[in-house]
Amino acid sequence: MSTIDSSPLLERLFSDEAQLHAFSDRQRVAAMLHFEAALARALARCGLIPDTAVPAIEAQCSTEFYDFAAIGAAARQAGNLAIPLVKALTERVRQQDAEASRWVHWGATSQDVIDTGLILQLREAWTPIESTLTRAIDATAVLTERHRDSVMAGRTWLQQAVPISFGLKTAGWLDALLRHRERLRQLPARLFVLQFGGAAGTLASLGPQADAASAALAAELQLARPDLPWHAHRDRLVEAAALLGLLTGTLGKIARDLSLMMQTEIGEVCEPAAPGRGGSSAMPHKRNPVGCSIALAAATRVPQLLATLYAAMPQEHERGLGNWPAEWATLPEIVRLSGGALTAMEEVLRGLEVDTARMRENLDASLGLPYAERVSMQLAATLGKEQAHRLVEQAARRAAAARRPLRDELAADAAVNGVLTAETLDELFAPRAALGESANFVARVLARYHERN
Amino acid sequence: MSTIDSSPLLERLFSDEAQLHAFSDRQRVAAMLHFEAALARALARCGLIPDTAVPAIEAQCSTEFYDFAAIGAAARQAGNLAIPLVKALTERVRQQDAEASRWVHWGATSQDVIDTGLILQLREAWTPIESTLTRAIDATAVLTERHRDSVMAGRTWLQQAVPISFGLKTAGWLDALLRHRERLRQLPARLFVLQFGGAAGTLASLGPQADAASAALAAELQLARPDLPWHAHRDRLVEAAALLGLLTGTLGKIARDLSLMMQTEIGEVCEPAAPGRGGSSAMPHKRNPVGCSIALAAATRVPQLLATLYAAMPQEHERGLGNWPAEWATLPEIVRLSGGALTAMEEVLRGLEVDTARMRENLDASLGLPYAERVSMQLAATLGKEQAHRLVEQAARRAAAARRPLRDELAADAAVNGVLTAETLDELFAPRAALGESANFVARVLARYHERN
Amino acid sequence: MSTIDSSPLLERLFSDEAQLHAFSDRQRVAAMLHFEAALARALARCGLIPDTAVPAIEAQCSTEFYDFAAIGAAARQAGNLAIPLVKALTERVRQQDAEASRWVHWGATSQDVIDTGLILQLREAWTPIESTLTRAIDATAVLTERHRDSVMAGRTWLQQAVPISFGLKTAGWLDALLRHRERLRQLPARLFVLQFGGAAGTLASLGPQADAASAALAAELQLARPDLPWHAHRDRLVEAAALLGLLTGTLGKIARDLSLMMQTEIGEVCEPAAPGRGGSSAMPHKRNPVGCSIALAAATRVPQLLATLYAAMPQEHERGLGNWPAEWATLPEIVRLSGGALTAMEEVLRGLEVDTARMRENLDASLGLPYAERVSMQLAATLGKEQAHRLVEQAARRAAAARRPLRDELAADAAVNGVLTAETLDELFAPRAALGESANFVARVLARYHERN
Amino acid sequence: MSTIDSSPLLERLFSDEAQLHAFSDRQRVAAMLHFEAALARALARCGLIPDTAVPAIEAQCSTEFYDFAAIGAAARQAGNLAIPLVKALTERVRQQDAEASRWVHWGATSQDVIDTGLILQLREAWTPIESTLTRAIDATAVLTERHRDSVMAGRTWLQQAVPISFGLKTAGWLDALLRHRERLRQLPARLFVLQFGGAAGTLASLGPQADAASAALAAELQLARPDLPWHAHRDRLVEAAALLGLLTGTLGKIARDLSLMMQTEIGEVCEPAAPGRGGSSAMPHKRNPVGCSIALAAATRVPQLLATLYAAMPQEHERGLGNWPAEWATLPEIVRLSGGALTAMEEVLRGLEVDTARMRENLDASLGLPYAERVSMQLAATLGKEQAHRLVEQAARRAAAARRPLRDELAADAAVNGVLTAETLDELFAPRAALGESANFVARVLARYHERN
Repeated sequence: MSTIDSSPLLERLFSDEAQLHAFSDRQRVAAMLHFEAALARALARCGLIPDTAVPAIEAQCSTEFYDFAAIGAAARQAGNLAIPLVKALTERVRQQDAEASRWVHWGATSQDVIDTGLILQLREAWTPIESTLTRAIDATAVLTERHRDSVMAGRTWLQQAVPISFGLKTAGWLDALLRHRERLRQLPARLFVLQFGGAAGTLASLGPQADAASAALAAELQLARPDLPWHAHRDRLVEAAALLGLLTGTLGKIARDLSLMMQTEIGEVCEPAAPGRGGSSAMPHKRNPVGCSIALAAATRVPQLLATLYAAMPQEHERGLGNWPAEWATLPEIVRLSGGALTAMEEVLRGLEVDTARMRENLDASLGLPYAERVSMQLAATLGKEQAHRLVEQAARRAAAARRPLRDELAADAAVNGVLTAETLDELFAPRAALGESANFVARVLARYHERN
Repeated sequence: MSTIDSSPLLERLFSDEAQLHAFSDRQRVAAMLHFEAALARALARCGLIPDTAVPAIEAQCSTEFYDFAAIGAAARQAGNLAIPLVKALTERVRQQDAEASRWVHWGATSQDVIDTGLILQLREAWTPIESTLTRAIDATAVLTERHRDSVMAGRTWLQQAVPISFGLKTAGWLDALLRHRERLRQLPARLFVLQFGGAAGTLASLGPQADAASAALAAELQLARPDLPWHAHRDRLVEAAALLGLLTGTLGKIARDLSLMMQTEIGEVCEPAAPGRGGSSAMPHKRNPVGCSIALAAATRVPQLLATLYAAMPQEHERGLGNWPAEWATLPEIVRLSGGALTAMEEVLRGLEVDTARMRENLDASLGLPYAERVSMQLAATLGKEQAHRLVEQAARRAAAARRPLRDELAADAAVNGVLTAETLDELFAPRAALGESANFVARVLARYHERN
Repeated sequence: MSTIDSSPLLERLFSDEAQLHAFSDRQRVAAMLHFEAALARALARCGLIPDTAVPAIEAQCSTEFYDFAAIGAAARQAGNLAIPLVKALTERVRQQDAEASRWVHWGATSQDVIDTGLILQLREAWTPIESTLTRAIDATAVLTERHRDSVMAGRTWLQQAVPISFGLKTAGWLDALLRHRERLRQLPARLFVLQFGGAAGTLASLGPQADAASAALAAELQLARPDLPWHAHRDRLVEAAALLGLLTGTLGKIARDLSLMMQTEIGEVCEPAAPGRGGSSAMPHKRNPVGCSIALAAATRVPQLLATLYAAMPQEHERGLGNWPAEWATLPEIVRLSGGALTAMEEVLRGLEVDTARMRENLDASLGLPYAERVSMQLAATLGKEQAHRLVEQAARRAAAARRPLRDELAADAAVNGVLTAETLDELFAPRAALGESANFVARVLARYHERN
Repeated sequence: MSTIDSSPLLERLFSDEAQLHAFSDRQRVAAMLHFEAALARALARCGLIPDTAVPAIEAQCSTEFYDFAAIGAAARQAGNLAIPLVKALTERVRQQDAEASRWVHWGATSQDVIDTGLILQLREAWTPIESTLTRAIDATAVLTERHRDSVMAGRTWLQQAVPISFGLKTAGWLDALLRHRERLRQLPARLFVLQFGGAAGTLASLGPQADAASAALAAELQLARPDLPWHAHRDRLVEAAALLGLLTGTLGKIARDLSLMMQTEIGEVCEPAAPGRGGSSAMPHKRNPVGCSIALAAATRVPQLLATLYAAMPQEHERGLGNWPAEWATLPEIVRLSGGALTAMEEVLRGLEVDTARMRENLDASLGLPYAERVSMQLAATLGKEQAHRLVEQAARRAAAARRPLRDELAADAAVNGVLTAETLDELFAPRAALGESANFVARVLARYHERN
């Protein structure tokens, strides 16, 4: 039985293997059982339960012993997964060792095992996210190096604006991805902490050994200890999701750019080809931006899933009602979608096909209009900004109407050719010369990239 | 193998059996195969494909032939579930009848089968929702009849305000539930429609028989035909989800009221008891509002899931990129959560334990302050509203500080007892007399209930 | 002082005049004062307050008497706008007629005046929305009539798919807009109802005349009477917002299509030109899709604002805490954004510049690939679907690589030309012939349009 | 004319003075004009424009010269506020000095001035948020010190669970608030950066002096320089909003706790009293949790406003269409709501009235049930956990049914009194002894508080 056998169809589509595994039902139950076994060891070490109970409990802490469907059904009555799971665990221990079964889940409450289990799953999920992000960063840096001088149209409001280099565009992506990595690296210290407070966060049932027991449990699980239990304070979890949401937003931005550049009429890039990838059931010629689609879907869904976590923060008193359960499926979904989008875009970035000739053609096809600002600025030094803007705007309209290059319209305009010679016009319409600070900006981001690696 | 074997743990907790079934992977695939079989029959009837292909295709349209995990994995490359499923179906048909395999999925596009499959699943989901809603309405009507004269504290901003009847409160729930039923009943005409347009909504590949084929397919599936394909117009689906969201909001409101009334310090109602229901893993005395928790969790999650559907509406051109996939897991989740919350609250409403003595005690314990408005109005007729309000406000403060009944404070206040006699004060503090229009309001809602049944 | 003087800059950008007016602070206060004046008349008619109080109260129910900034500041202490407004109103009445001031706001609670005031504002807002929607529908119908045979590329996943007519695309918009009008027309019966319940919804302070008073108040305001007050049941309001959200989603879809078609490289349509419209502060040649930008911004914001309203539905007991106030700014914003988007898109649709030659050019420029499905279907009748799909897919790849028409690649392919003659190929690549059911679909939607007008 | 004159009524209710000021229209325009003046100085310093233009431009950079309503109306045509503002500024400069007017906004694009203006507003907003947060932290620390031994009922799922100290509850709030301060302090380095890129982020129109000009502009505005313009990368802004969202979630949690404790039937705390605060227009005795209401409303609205910012992240190419405008009103609203909620809760925390006697009464009134876990654990050491749990559960049911203390039920139960003596039972039901680690947890958080101050 595969460890991800219960992942439904759609999760497979939007997630990657690592996240499917980390947030499968099996791992969810495994993490909870891991907590129970570690708890037994920690309590025994502090003399709170007999040493002999430990192996008896540990022996039953394997997922294959439990019927997930039955636990799910009982959870609907009980209100959470821990109650039926602990009950089933206790029953199995009793069948082997009645005495040991007295000490199962000793001193803990449902939320201790559920929350700590989630933290363990998040820790499992974090490593592949960080490493995939690093690979995506590397792939973007390669694109940036390679295309620092590849001229293309810069576009604003979906209109061609002025020339840029493709490397400048990818440097923008790289710049954002580097910030995301920095943010993600700051997180573990706040996030990977134990939850252990008993019924209402006092650990009262453990008596004077409570502190030692809590320390031992944290050590068993290799988690930090918080200053106090955080059953009704969820900011650590929401912060983690919020950072993944930021990352997903940037992945969506990259996917937006790439899918627009992949449009049939633009054709400047193409997602890597692979058998079975991006075809259509009806149209033999299609090559769909499948990776972008996964990232854009994630960028459409994650913001609202995040809003659920934020909205669930005002949890009542020592443990909330309804708002805590609202997190259970939501946070894993955010991690799965973010991780899946990251993997999809890492593949796209690594294998991206770039057609620099087409970039240049698209820029040239727009009659030199993207050079309008450049000409306007030059004219403005003599004529003032407004008159210059007006002259160029009129020439641009004539050019568009006649489908004739702007350069020619300007050369034919007396008000312009009194100011700008033909040579100056040629210079103004030279693409490479029009890139401004592009190369400097690219160089700065790449320098930061190399420094951080 | 149970039909809902792939539903993960958490879906079982928040959903009910009917919705788990309707939106299981198995039903998803079954609905898509149902479309493919119906398409074959419809096309054959119009002479577009040979009659002999039909049984060969139908024979392979059973879910047990397909490896869901493999389809999910391939879908990540292909971009949707239909492509690998149709490929696997075609392959199975070919193994039996190479000629017939030519005609699988003829003229259709992926979105035709996915969207129509979803509509079929929604239709399956709708009947249990309507019948559970009717049972919830009936249970609420019973409570309303029974408690039309049960006096309790009306509460605003979580403070006791003036007396009401418990029946007035439940009549408010009933009134809203009746509106929801009315809304849900208007929906099927707009919702249960065929999706069939081919590659870009023109059915061009079917030639002159396209119209007949489309009509035949709609008839096969017992779906209405829309005026044109709606691949990129999702308002039908979002409207359905929006109505479920309204219902879930009301269920959350009922759950909010009940869980507040169940607080240890208030204790006016209790969810029905059952073995394994509402206990705590740490605290033997707990009786948690588990049904309310399910409804409140749904009311916390559904609004944002709905926002995803709304946000995904601006789909590009003839079929969207990224926003369409954003719907796939979201809409089923909304139906599952709404249906699960409805079932949970129907159980709670049907078995609700009501403690009318405690309601009366809680009202009495608040020193008569909820009658303050009543006294103030009476005084105002003589003293004017502001002076009356001031006098009563001051008496209320003294009463609260001294923990002495407001009635006694007022009787001892010269400015008041010059206006109100002891008898008048007694009348003003008589609970039943203070219910105002409660009984009339209850009667109107019940009349509407009986009329609609 | 203009009636919309307090609308901030950004509201002016995203809203239209009608909605700015309806939801200005002035109208908000005016609607509340309108309620107070009507209440006085209604109560006097039922003998609950003296007739002489009515003119004294009415005389002070004008917005120019009130200092909005002071009311706003006091509201932060009081918790809502009604408390300081009623206090200020009472004070003004007292200065003229101390006796009359006793009867201001008699029997009502803050939420009665705030909710009913909102309903009055919504009613004012509704008429211009309906009429603008009708104009948008008319403009879309004109486009649809005019372009029922204008051939263009149908696009899926941002890739050219198969030919469609531009009229088919606009018929899809029209079809959705007609559904929205139908939905909006069903709403007033449920929405335009009185809120009047007093402290906790019992109208207890009005005694036996409460029912008559409520009826008289509804008549004064020309609002329907609900079966009972709905202070804590917000489904009517959320439903109205949800329908506007659906409309905004469709407006966003139209704006998405148009802005993609306006891309420099595609150039198939252009927003209407006007002085000061769509320029850039830096680039003289820009003609930005400004109307589309307003609609897309609305379609990005409204879904989450809607989610706030849904999330605020579980309001506590007889009147909620925190969730009711969460509606106050949110619902008006939804109406303003929806109305503003509708007006913006109505202007765009009415004045849209369409370049049918460019549509045809773009289709032709893609080497005949959009006809691939058509050829594949034809081949499939002989070779079977999979082989046909494979042959055409390979020819399409060769065509794209060599930038040579697909028709020529196919003609040169022995496996193909054994099946399809040159004449058949010519027919298959004839655009008009490739439109399938487009004209029929257009005709159906237009028939519905004419029937509904 | 007050600087916040255009803030509408509802913003005044939910925001505080500092945020109203920082995000008023006036400050919005002032920040944009501040950019234009600084740009002139920076360009002159680099020799890009004549020195003489500077004073002429600076002289017109005052908000009182501009008609906001006209700018708002023109912005609807232009697509943003910068275009009409720069036009009006240029016109005013021209009237004084035609030559100087040539150099207004030289080299900048609309988004440069809008984004940088926003950053300046955020910087103004940040200081009062930090200082109010520190005051809220101080007030919470005072409560925590004072109530470290105040016994009350811990409550989970809205049911009494086990005893805690009120200081433990406030230590939980303090712990979260300290984390928020830490997060907020990390932000400025990433957030307060210049936006300056010209038309598409290349600064091409400034020629070789672009880099120097950009550095000079950053110095003028005392902002950091990013490695490259970030027109279409919004993660910095969204991160800031996300942190405020986390803070607001915690404020909502505190408000949730306090408003539940303020319920008439519980009465353990009360918001500070003040004239005009928390009354009701109908009910003289009401003392509503107004501060909590403001925080809860913010906690209901901010999550979805945040989702809008996240959803708007995938902005197209060099500058986005529709998604960028979606931020304009949304981000300021988040800051206003967060700041307003913080101020409201700081007032509540600082002046909170705490009734420790009532806390003890509420705990005692629940028949000792909150000690059930404690007894169960003690019994379990002898009888095993399950049997102990069962015995205590049954005794708890009998106690609740008979309204008789649990201690007496247990003393009367043979299975229990064979294990626990009367003395042991007395100890088990002693509140202070039942607080477990409460005091240690409080001490740790307070130690962190003192260390950070």
